[in-house]
Amino acid sequence: MSLQRIVRVSLEHPTSAVCVAGVETLVDIYGSVPEGTEMFEVYGTPDVDVYISPSMERGREPADTRRWHCDAGLEIIVVMNSPSKDLNDGHVQISYYSSRKPLPLAYAVLYLTCVDIALDCDLNCEGRESRSFVDKVGHLGLGPERGVEFGTALGGVKKDEVITAPPGSHNCPFHPLPGPEDSCEAYRHALGQDKMSYEVPRSHGDEERFFVEGLSFPDAGFTGLISFHVTLLDDSNEDFSESPIFTDTVVFRVAPWIMTPSTLPPLEVYVCRVKNNMCFVDAVAELARKAGCKLTICPQAENRNDRWIQDEMELGYVQAPHKTFPVVFDSPRNGELQDFPYKRILGPDFGYVTREPQGSSVCGLDSFGNLEVSPPVVANGREYPLGRILIGGNLPGSSGRRVTQVVRDFLHAQRVQPPVELFVDWLAVGHVDEFLSFVPAPDGKGFRMLLASPGACFKLFQEKRKWGHGRALLFEGLVGNVRVNTISINQVLSNENLINYNKFVQSCIDWNREVLKRELGLTEQDIVDIPQLFKTEKRKAVAFFPDLVNMLVLGKYLGIPKPFGPIINGRCCLEEKVRSLLEPLGLHCTFIDDFTPYHMLHGEVHCGTNVRRQPFPFKWWHMVP
Amino acid sequence: MSLQRIVRVSLEHPTSAVCVAGVETLVDIYGSVPEGTEMFEVYGTPDVDVYISPSMERGREPADTRRWHCDAGLEIIVVMNSPSKDLNDGHVQISYYSSRKPLPLAYAVLYLTCVDIALDCDLNCEGRESRSFVDKVGHLGLGPERGVEFGTALGGVKKDEVITAPPGSHNCPFHPLPGPEDSCEAYRHALGQDKMSYEVPRSHGDEERFFVEGLSFPDAGFTGLISFHVTLLDDSNEDFSESPIFTDTVVFRVAPWIMTPSTLPPLEVYVCRVKNNMCFVDAVAELARKAGCKLTICPQAENRNDRWIQDEMELGYVQAPHKTFPVVFDSPRNGELQDFPYKRILGPDFGYVTREPQGSSVCGLDSFGNLEVSPPVVANGREYPLGRILIGGNLPGSSGRRVTQVVRDFLHAQRVQPPVELFVDWLAVGHVDEFLSFVPAPDGKGFRMLLASPGACFKLFQEKRKWGHGRALLFEGLVGNVRVNTISINQVLSNENLINYNKFVQSCIDWNREVLKRELGLTEQDIVDIPQLFKTEKRKAVAFFPDLVNMLVLGKYLGIPKPFGPIINGRCCLEEKVRSLLEPLGLHCTFIDDFTPYHMLHGEVHCGTNVRRQPFPFKWWHMVP
Repeated sequence: MSLQRIVRVSLEHPTSAVCVAGVETLVDIYGSVPEGTEMFEVYGTPDVDVYISPSMERGREPADTRRWHCDAGLEIIVVMNSPSKDLNDGHVQISYYSSRKPLPLAYAVLYLTCVDIALDCDLNCEGRESRSFVDKVGHLGLGPERGVEFGTALGGVKKDEVITAPPGSHNCPFHPLPGPEDSCEAYRHALGQDKMSYEVPRSHGDEERFFVEGLSFPDAGFTGLISFHVTLLDDSNEDFSESPIFTDTVVFRVAPWIMTPSTLPPLEVYVCRVKNNMCFVDAVAELARKAGCKLTICPQAENRNDRWIQDEMELGYVQAPHKTFPVVFDSPRNGELQDFPYKRILGPDFGYVTREPQGSSVCGLDSFGNLEVSPPVVANGREYPLGRILIGGNLPGSSGRRVTQVVRDFLHAQRVQPPVELFVDWLAVGHVDEFLSFVPAPDGKGFRMLLASPGACFKLFQEKRKWGHGRALLFEGLVGNVRVNTISINQVLSNENLINYNKFVQSCIDWNREVLKRELGLTEQDIVDIPQLFKTEKRKAVAFFPDLVNMLVLGKYLGIPKPFGPIINGRCCLEEKVRSLLEPLGLHCTFIDDFTPYHMLHGEVHCGTNVRRQPFPFKWWHMVP
Repeated sequence: MSLQRIVRVSLEHPTSAVCVAGVETLVDIYGSVPEGTEMFEVYGTPDVDVYISPSMERGREPADTRRWHCDAGLEIIVVMNSPSKDLNDGHVQISYYSSRKPLPLAYAVLYLTCVDIALDCDLNCEGRESRSFVDKVGHLGLGPERGVEFGTALGGVKKDEVITAPPGSHNCPFHPLPGPEDSCEAYRHALGQDKMSYEVPRSHGDEERFFVEGLSFPDAGFTGLISFHVTLLDDSNEDFSESPIFTDTVVFRVAPWIMTPSTLPPLEVYVCRVKNNMCFVDAVAELARKAGCKLTICPQAENRNDRWIQDEMELGYVQAPHKTFPVVFDSPRNGELQDFPYKRILGPDFGYVTREPQGSSVCGLDSFGNLEVSPPVVANGREYPLGRILIGGNLPGSSGRRVTQVVRDFLHAQRVQPPVELFVDWLAVGHVDEFLSFVPAPDGKGFRMLLASPGACFKLFQEKRKWGHGRALLFEGLVGNVRVNTISINQVLSNENLINYNKFVQSCIDWNREVLKRELGLTEQDIVDIPQLFKTEKRKAVAFFPDLVNMLVLGKYLGIPKPFGPIINGRCCLEEKVRSLLEPLGLHCTFIDDFTPYHMLHGEVHCGTNVRRQPFPFKWWHMVP
């Protein structure tokens, strides 16, 4: 609702006023009513609609139907719906009557000039003619925190205007650009840093087009809401300061950076070629081919043997009604792959954002293997149609490792995938992808959460021992010059240290299991326990055999670290178990040997790959944050 | 709801676990079920309640009523309600049965040790025994932004811990202090800046008390929500890192600074004694006496003739369930009164807060005559039970004067009185109290909003002229050596410049009228137009005669600037008009001569006084922000 404007009329002179097409003007007659007046009549020229209303809350009637009592506190509302052709071409006349005289006691005359002014938002970039202009859902008050989210803007779109959030950039993270649509060079910078207002040139009938670009993502201290106002000012009297006639407002919300869970269809797989992973790259390539997605190999010259492409970046996207494109979030971890996101991923249709702590150092948890997102969930009565971000940290209040503040602030500020912080400080590397993964499922909530489970592994091994396979050897299948000692099921089941340590690991994963059940609204039926053992190195946990949940999920095709478990009847009993758990969901399991190039360096298939995925079909601006 | 914990039992060894009194533990038997098992039974010692539940969503039954099918995915839930007397004194036994054999196939045994640990909040400071401890309404996730507001804390209480918001203080604006309640010296600093965790000493049956003090008000970048966690850690195995058993969380919300509208009962009136305002101080003292409130006179030695005590500070309050006290907000305006709030107002039971911009300068709008608050209102379907803050600023997007950013940020961050920004840049001084005021009323919404109205003044003068009083003189009543020329009603009504300028002023006030109607949900019936004229000085507006709405409201007693209007039949027609508008509301009008010491310096009664008022009966923590 626009502000109504008040115009006061008098008996002595006609009053002239400017009104805005479609916007109501209150005509105040009570400041100047002739003595003895009991009734009044109001008439307008055909281009002026005149109504009488007893109050704002109650209904209104066309004014020209009858005579009105003057003492009833009635309000006269006039509105013109199209702009004037000439100055003062709308007329309203109020006639004042006494019951004693047939002719009016006096007249008050109001001349109106109607101008057309509005700030509209072409959400779909289809131009005004297409009627796709969206009415403003609401208007802003003058305060900064009363925004109605209805516009959208992309954040971080241009290569030469990379989002780096320099200090002070939050003062105006938008550059509205007026200019013709088809000529980039003709754009002029109208509003933005140090340009708080722009005088719109007067023209008749034309519309002025502004193009708006978000330059910063929402973050701590910047909600992402930006208000634009157009104000019609009366500067006709040089002796006074300007007075306002009309203000219209639109509010934009900067598009948040959105992560894609592993359950969304894959579009492109990234993997590094390093000196000893030829077979691995081939296996990933084959899986990508099966899944029908593009493969991008980062060559050795660019990665200098840094193979942890999962850790270097997270591939998300931004979305506006007319355009969607991917945006890479470059992690503060800066290994040899450091330049890859900026130099190779960032491009004309691929945005870039990064956050690095000033002064303080980063830790292992700041790698983006520790940054995942769930599929859409409903928890505690709240919908998360874009899922929830999962990051690993310490126990509440403890002094352990956490994701650096600037990254946590950034993730929280996007608001559409509210983060959950899990407990990972018990892990040597400390990434959520070491114990959890999500795979698509045809039933239930549409997915299963896979959790690494020492309990499930001991149970499996106990069953195998009972059936007489106690001497089957873990790591027996490893070939070549991998220097790992085999160990039998019997040996595992009699190793008290290993058993006790895995009980401890289980308690840590169970802690997270309960947090995840609560924060994602999951039940036991949504969870699949994947057999896994861990061992301790310097009082922290690492995978004892290749970490099965650390998998590459490409639709129905899973690239799972080959566990080299005990061979029973010619087949790895761990692979068999995993197949029996996942194949009923329609998933295809491919076990990829990552032992030497990844597992022995404390990573697996997921750590060594990255995936760009299809955006959610759900539009973020439909979400109530 | 607390996190459930999972304990996994086995057939081979009894399992020992720690549980927390009243907190459920899930017993997972499926990792270790003997072959051939079809049914199971569960029994616990009397101190252990054992239930069977088909799923989290559905109901549960006591476990000892019957035998249970083993393949139904049933969950076993155990809970102990009081702490153990001895280690492992709670026993649970699971017996596994096949239908073919009468005796159990095997047993699994769980030993439980129950400890009592909880983080509770004594909202009313009445001690645990009084049963006033409030249950936690909800629990936090591990993420920082999932707070449930249920605790409260005071902000800015101690004189020697003045809230100054030094850079970085937001990292931990709380100091929880453990220690006995009656001995201040024995307090130790447990948590706060650089103290992220505190190890609670082990004790049997005792409770540890922490006292919490808020040191910073909510502000930009600090929501005011603070989470405290207590975590029970298992550090029994030196080879492993600690693992979590239980976490409990409470969330505090720092009490916001709350303003009091002029419709709340007055407690204390402040006025400055300066070299030429003896009669004024006497008049204010008499009004305070009538209203039954305390009078505090700031002596000349302290104010050095700076009389604008309204502008120097705003008197609000903070509130917790057990304690409420006033807090002065010291304005960034720093005149000669600069030290008064800090040196004279701040005290053991009077808090202090200030915000000053770094680097940038302040303007006239940063004086707190430009900071008012409405009575409680409902607008656009939203309740404002503590009213809305009103500050003056420029037109949206224009380059005019606004309240400095740090003050606006602070006001918005309190959240319980969402600010409305009005248009005041047309005024020379630029304060909202130059054109609006609120007075209590016995009907309607319980108040009226008074607006300065040039239109109402012209109407009044036209009526007087019509009745033959056109030669009555404004300013005639001024005595002594005030050098102001008198001016007749006829002269006013024939001064085109004055008329045109006041039409402009009326359009500016009307603009605000419509903003106020919309943002405070007011109708015309809630507004009283008080006759007033303005004149222009350097293209900005100042009051032409003492500004009637700039009044001191002490309950039903109004101290109104004496207008020195035209004397008709021996009485000032402006005073008569104001009385006729306000006395029917049960208000008592006292017209105070502020002409020489205030009006001629562009201020009036309101600018020269300040009032500490009773807090709202409504508690801020019942408000949904």
